[in-house]
Amino acid sequence: MIEQSLRDALRAFVAERDWAQFHTPENLSKSISIEAAELLECFQWNTDAKSERVQAELADVLTYCLLLADRLGVDPEQIVREKLEQTRTKYPVDKARGRSNKYDEF
Amino acid sequence: MIEQSLRDALRAFVAERDWAQFHTPENLSKSISIEAAELLECFQWNTDAKSERVQAELADVLTYCLLLADRLGVDPEQIVREKLEQTRTKYPVDKARGRSNKYDEF
Amino acid sequence: MIEQSLRDALRAFVAERDWAQFHTPENLSKSISIEAAELLECFQWNTDAKSERVQAELADVLTYCLLLADRLGVDPEQIVREKLEQTRTKYPVDKARGRSNKYDEF
Amino acid sequence: MIEQSLRDALRAFVAERDWAQFHTPENLSKSISIEAAELLECFQWNTDAKSERVQAELADVLTYCLLLADRLGVDPEQIVREKLEQTRTKYPVDKARGRSNKYDEF
Repeated sequence: MIEQSLRDALRAFVAERDWAQFHTPENLSKSISIEAAELLECFQWNTDAKSERVQAELADVLTYCLLLADRLGVDPEQIVREKLEQTRTKYPVDKARGRSNKYDEF
Repeated sequence: MIEQSLRDALRAFVAERDWAQFHTPENLSKSISIEAAELLECFQWNTDAKSERVQAELADVLTYCLLLADRLGVDPEQIVREKLEQTRTKYPVDKARGRSNKYDEF
Repeated sequence: MIEQSLRDALRAFVAERDWAQFHTPENLSKSISIEAAELLECFQWNTDAKSERVQAELADVLTYCLLLADRLGVDPEQIVREKLEQTRTKYPVDKARGRSNKYDEF
Repeated sequence: MIEQSLRDALRAFVAERDWAQFHTPENLSKSISIEAAELLECFQWNTDAKSERVQAELADVLTYCLLLADRLGVDPEQIVREKLEQTRTKYPVDKARGRSNKYDEF
């Protein structure tokens, strides 16, 4: 479960600025895509990138993910755990082992 | 801090399938963008979407975020907390309150 | 067919800067996603946006699309026309008329 | 200038299905991001991909770009040409030659 202190800090940050009005699930989803592209930009022309830059962009994606989870009323670690169970079934070890075509051609 | 049991479950999932070889920071960043777009697809033509679908797509984005954080050797909750401190300074309450133009025109 | 003068101008632009080496299909595809997100950013918190800003971001997406088409050796207008034929069959008028769920639930 | 026959074919396709109501600039921009991610998916775990798959996904991105250009009342080739002029000034040949850090660190 996400630490309560972090969830509370995020909620306070939004409330103090009266930003909940902008944080619809749709707008947060757009924001996740936008920040994900900034993360991708670290690798636009290269396969490596400065670690602190990647870390900062990843933090932005994660922040919007946590805000959306809170908006949906779900615990982020819990939904990851549940999805992991499903994926485990979908890609059994004996078939998936060492294959990169796991997602589209399985 | 992310729960150790979840981090361990993700690591085991990847290790059992021998997938670490595909999980470079670049490939994980591409994957985050790809999954973020599937989340956005829930809202392609509407502002509302079925909650369980949104939740499932959010879980996929989060999973790749946690895998990238682990790959970078950083704690996801910690980097969100650090970024929040910076954003707090960048958008002080008195200037940001109730304004949607916060990010691009501040 | 895309105007030859534009295709030539794009080729000259790339050649003069010796940038073809960076313009692999993968890098151009990443670039299209990155620029698409900048276009989306015009609508992050609103449904309307300044037309000239949208136009400038759209131009960036299109530029990388044309560069990728040229790299693949295909004419951009031709592949749009071909895809349109397929989509026409996939979404026949009598079933698709006025329905927004066209893409995911048909 | 985009061929009139193609522009007319796209317009007829939309009109016959009564889809103009869904094609707001915002929704088309979301659609461009979504299709761009499907293009990126061709390269999720590899640097190469089947050419016909890449071509089909590129066609989808382009289609939404042309629909957005038409909605904005601009000619797609014209805005690319204008942007190219600006980029030419921003990245002069003598400084940009053979450098991959062109976009973010110039």
